[in-house]
Amino acid sequence: MDFLRLMPLEEALKDFFQRWQPRLRTETVPLEAATGRVLAEPVRATADIPGFARSTVDGYAVAAEDTFGASEGLPAPLRVIGEVPMGQAAAVRLEPGAAVRVATGAMLPEGADAAVMIEHTETLDEGAHEIGVTRPVAPGDNVIRRGEDLAAGTELLAPGHTLTPYDIGALSGIGLTAVKVFTAPLVAVVSTGDEVVPASAEPRPGQVRDINGPALAAAVLAEGGAPMVMGIYPDEFAAQEGALHAALEGGADMVLVSGGSSVGARDLTSSVINSLGQPGVFLHGLAVRPGKPTIAALVGGVPVIGLPGHPASALVVFEVFVRPILKAMQGLAGPAAWHRPWVWATLTRNLASGPGREDYVRVRLRPRPLPAGGGAEAAGLRGEVPTTDQPAFEAEPVLGKSGLISTLVKADGLLRIPLEKEGLRAGETVKVTLL
Amino acid sequence: MDFLRLMPLEEALKDFFQRWQPRLRTETVPLEAATGRVLAEPVRATADIPGFARSTVDGYAVAAEDTFGASEGLPAPLRVIGEVPMGQAAAVRLEPGAAVRVATGAMLPEGADAAVMIEHTETLDEGAHEIGVTRPVAPGDNVIRRGEDLAAGTELLAPGHTLTPYDIGALSGIGLTAVKVFTAPLVAVVSTGDEVVPASAEPRPGQVRDINGPALAAAVLAEGGAPMVMGIYPDEFAAQEGALHAALEGGADMVLVSGGSSVGARDLTSSVINSLGQPGVFLHGLAVRPGKPTIAALVGGVPVIGLPGHPASALVVFEVFVRPILKAMQGLAGPAAWHRPWVWATLTRNLASGPGREDYVRVRLRPRPLPAGGGAEAAGLRGEVPTTDQPAFEAEPVLGKSGLISTLVKADGLLRIPLEKEGLRAGETVKVTLL
Repeated sequence: MDFLRLMPLEEALKDFFQRWQPRLRTETVPLEAATGRVLAEPVRATADIPGFARSTVDGYAVAAEDTFGASEGLPAPLRVIGEVPMGQAAAVRLEPGAAVRVATGAMLPEGADAAVMIEHTETLDEGAHEIGVTRPVAPGDNVIRRGEDLAAGTELLAPGHTLTPYDIGALSGIGLTAVKVFTAPLVAVVSTGDEVVPASAEPRPGQVRDINGPALAAAVLAEGGAPMVMGIYPDEFAAQEGALHAALEGGADMVLVSGGSSVGARDLTSSVINSLGQPGVFLHGLAVRPGKPTIAALVGGVPVIGLPGHPASALVVFEVFVRPILKAMQGLAGPAAWHRPWVWATLTRNLASGPGREDYVRVRLRPRPLPAGGGAEAAGLRGEVPTTDQPAFEAEPVLGKSGLISTLVKADGLLRIPLEKEGLRAGETVKVTLL
Repeated sequence: MDFLRLMPLEEALKDFFQRWQPRLRTETVPLEAATGRVLAEPVRATADIPGFARSTVDGYAVAAEDTFGASEGLPAPLRVIGEVPMGQAAAVRLEPGAAVRVATGAMLPEGADAAVMIEHTETLDEGAHEIGVTRPVAPGDNVIRRGEDLAAGTELLAPGHTLTPYDIGALSGIGLTAVKVFTAPLVAVVSTGDEVVPASAEPRPGQVRDINGPALAAAVLAEGGAPMVMGIYPDEFAAQEGALHAALEGGADMVLVSGGSSVGARDLTSSVINSLGQPGVFLHGLAVRPGKPTIAALVGGVPVIGLPGHPASALVVFEVFVRPILKAMQGLAGPAAWHRPWVWATLTRNLASGPGREDYVRVRLRPRPLPAGGGAEAAGLRGEVPTTDQPAFEAEPVLGKSGLISTLVKADGLLRIPLEKEGLRAGETVKVTLL
């Protein structure tokens, strides 16, 4: 019996983000631990990169004008007056009519403004003291100029960017060994329920092992948070109040309370949260299935989210409601950065949905074999790119009661049936967010 | 000047996997550190889950036959003879014509085979000692039977499966606190080059900071390996031999040697690897751009891969050649599990490619705004699912010389131009692998 209005997800998130600003902390981490972290300040080149002109080919550093008009039939003759060893300053100065041997990456000598590939030269004497250039080069050809990659002061990466291995290479290349990133938010995970015992316990009749606590802690970690596992508490006011108080005192940036699938248990969690501080609970149910018995509160600026007791429901609510908040806490540049990858897929069976709620259906993805010929051939891509009206996957809904452990392990993705839709038909193309 | 035949990527990988079997080691890790790890043995339920029949609703446990024929007009009257407290064994036994109060998740008492939702009952007296059931239930309705979720002995997860937060919840639910997973492969990362200095050094003229070492170590870590950073070595036989020997002695499961963009440096790396053991180098170049100067060797069963010196090339070769090997070393069930997510995108400009080689082009992805109306409406999905001939992204190639740091940070994905294609046209739909 729910007399409260269920709030659509989008409205609930909007409402939440109007009430709340993340408190961001920063820390400096060594480069080797920085992949996946979010930059907290802009990164700029402090000097020209490269600091000197370099050859991009194995060959000869030249003055481009000495090669003008050169051809296979009439090579431009140049005297080889030395070599620039890798990793050393060019000791020799290029004179008119001369060339200096360089390997890929070597510094160009003074007087040179281009490099000629060894393949475009011929040796004119036995000791290779003289060469003929068979193809002309223009100034700058086969050369990276000083500062061409990054001029001193150029911004390489902006705050809010999530660092990839490519970025780590680039940061090392400009001389950083550590970067300032946003601190991983501390997320307290509280399990509740008179019937819930830890994984290590042998449940007595009437008891079940905790699923939500470990699953939510793992999800927090996988999404860039630092889980703070608080344990399991019975459906008693004092016990839950103590747990939530300890989480807040312990510096939690967010508190997740799971359990309480019964109406009474949910009301208890609401009362406990409201006793902790202002403004308290402001969301009393989501128009989302599974996920209706979700509550959201703010206690002194800290989000406290009550998640449904059914594990599949709790994890769907984590995905659609908690994850955006957790991502915002990491200082990401914008909602676009929070979204998971998704794929198009063909739905394998009809799915019903009630009006006035969003349904999230867990699906298993199977690669869908491409039909021979047809549009793929027409697109001229010989099977590399299938026709776009043939999604590459089939999405098979994971059926079964939401309390079942066995259904938890089967999903590859999540499919949304929007508020106003009453269902989806087998064969429809649907967007599946990858889990 | 390359007199050796360049090998197509697919052929090179096939050749490699014919010569090599991963040596898999296992370790036991606590559940809270197991997300993303690969299961090394099947996980089975050791007891029936749940161990007792449970209600899935707030309401009354009943004998279904006592409700047959019940309706709003003619409710089936039942005596309420007690309640099952959450987390406790049902102390009361259901008699014919009786009902027992249960909350969601509570144990069903003996004699009950279904539960009635409280919404489908009415109280017939003030103390709710007697209720009327207004809708009949069948045996098993609103109940999870003992062992219905997992019967004792049922396999929940198979070896080779990568653990998700959902799986962690399920494993906790069946009483596991630790799992046996495959050990992260130890991957030695060796940087070479007379010109290369560490990120912490101030490069002198002719010198550049190491990019490949930190980038490859980060990529190894991000893909589930344990990087073993060996440092930077000059282009000298003895120095590189010492480094590779130390890597193998140190227990490396794979060795990545980067650097040597010049032909001479590459030949040196080849000789050093061949001096270490049999069968030595068997791949002397990939028909891939960028990535041609790739070498692959086996030394006593350990893959030793020589990567190009240009960072973008090294990372492309990591992605297309090293990553499948690294994933196989993690015991994943099959190639399907190695693939990254990808998306369809519309190419923004023409791209040329030479015949006889695969091109990998780094691209930046931009969301593509949907056209109003049109196919999306026709699909009846009001913009939720765009027409499938309208990919959701545009792919803008990242141009620039492959040695540049500034291009390293710009790519969101990688696009492949197959061997037999001579290019792609602006406006074509292409498959972009997300990086």
